[in-house]
Amino acid sequence: MNLIENLNWRYAVKRYTNVKVPTDKLNRILEAIRLSASSAGLQPYSVLVIENEELRKQLLPFANGQPQVTEASHLLVFAAWENVTEEKISEYMKTIAAVRNIPIESLNVFKSRLMSFASRSAEENFNWAARQTYIAMGTALVAAAEEQVDATPMEGFDPSGFDKLLHLKEKGLRSVSIMTLGYRDVANDPTVQFKKVRRPSENLFIHFKN
Amino acid sequence: MNLIENLNWRYAVKRYTNVKVPTDKLNRILEAIRLSASSAGLQPYSVLVIENEELRKQLLPFANGQPQVTEASHLLVFAAWENVTEEKISEYMKTIAAVRNIPIESLNVFKSRLMSFASRSAEENFNWAARQTYIAMGTALVAAAEEQVDATPMEGFDPSGFDKLLHLKEKGLRSVSIMTLGYRDVANDPTVQFKKVRRPSENLFIHFKN
Repeated sequence: MNLIENLNWRYAVKRYTNVKVPTDKLNRILEAIRLSASSAGLQPYSVLVIENEELRKQLLPFANGQPQVTEASHLLVFAAWENVTEEKISEYMKTIAAVRNIPIESLNVFKSRLMSFASRSAEENFNWAARQTYIAMGTALVAAAEEQVDATPMEGFDPSGFDKLLHLKEKGLRSVSIMTLGYRDVANDPTVQFKKVRRPSENLFIHFKN
Repeated sequence: MNLIENLNWRYAVKRYTNVKVPTDKLNRILEAIRLSASSAGLQPYSVLVIENEELRKQLLPFANGQPQVTEASHLLVFAAWENVTEEKISEYMKTIAAVRNIPIESLNVFKSRLMSFASRSAEENFNWAARQTYIAMGTALVAAAEEQVDATPMEGFDPSGFDKLLHLKEKGLRSVSIMTLGYRDVANDPTVQFKKVRRPSENLFIHFKN
């Protein structure tokens, strides 16, 4: 199947079977996330990959009891940096210098541009970082669909409850969105037969032709 | 090529040739955007598809003079709803009822859940809508890569300048990010040979296994 067919195939699954996502498929979805674009390439987030059933049971009440959280094969938590610090930027410069085998000083102009983040408020930086996680989420949804793995992106959860249980504050992170991965339970998910609703092209796009 | 290869192939192109993206490829990228997931399926944004060269010249100073804006084949502007209004939600309910051929009253529970948006501030709704555009952006980047079309996502522009020139305020929209589409100019883009830098998996992902 091609991308458009895969995007039409996917939907926000409400009930999952207990079939596990094979490791090779999971790893390709995670690799797609890792390769996602982000502003300045900073990837200002971590992604928690939770297979552990006991932990997912503990998280369930903070996700409005949505059955996907425990039924699915894996739960991803997209957690953005609480702030963009000089330390994080310096670490990034080291990574670039190492990967490209260039002197770190050659990155000074780029670094000073990124250091402007340090003058913004923590909240401003967090909101910027949170937006970047949605690029990763969009990429993950496509990657899952191309692996014929079902996925449900969710904003309906209590971030502070998640942050506490997952000790995210100590890691300088705040949860932004969650996503389950697994296989749709066709017998028990009535929404499987719902026709996909999307705004018509002429309503969504505004064209300025030559 | 598969998805991972395509994501490795893509990079944020700095200089474009004057080769145009064929209509069928452009249309598939736009269709992928249209099929993107969004919270509650509301798609709270519009996407401007700007081929017009004169308009792109006018926008250029508000995009820090980045040559991609005028050199590329097309410029996309992701513009989020300024607010989520009852009118927008009612319109969405009508679309669902029409597509699924169901009575609009059967959506009352769903509608009242969405109507909680109306109690949030415009700024809160705009920030929520802006995040959704990043899912569409992530999807567009993958779709372009799969079409072997180059793309450059950009946050470095003046949204208020864009909003004014594109009359977005009158449409209840605010620009959030922009993206050029076209073909990399290998001879003139020195960054084409830069090795892709991404955080290593062990640093980006936190695993909780069974």
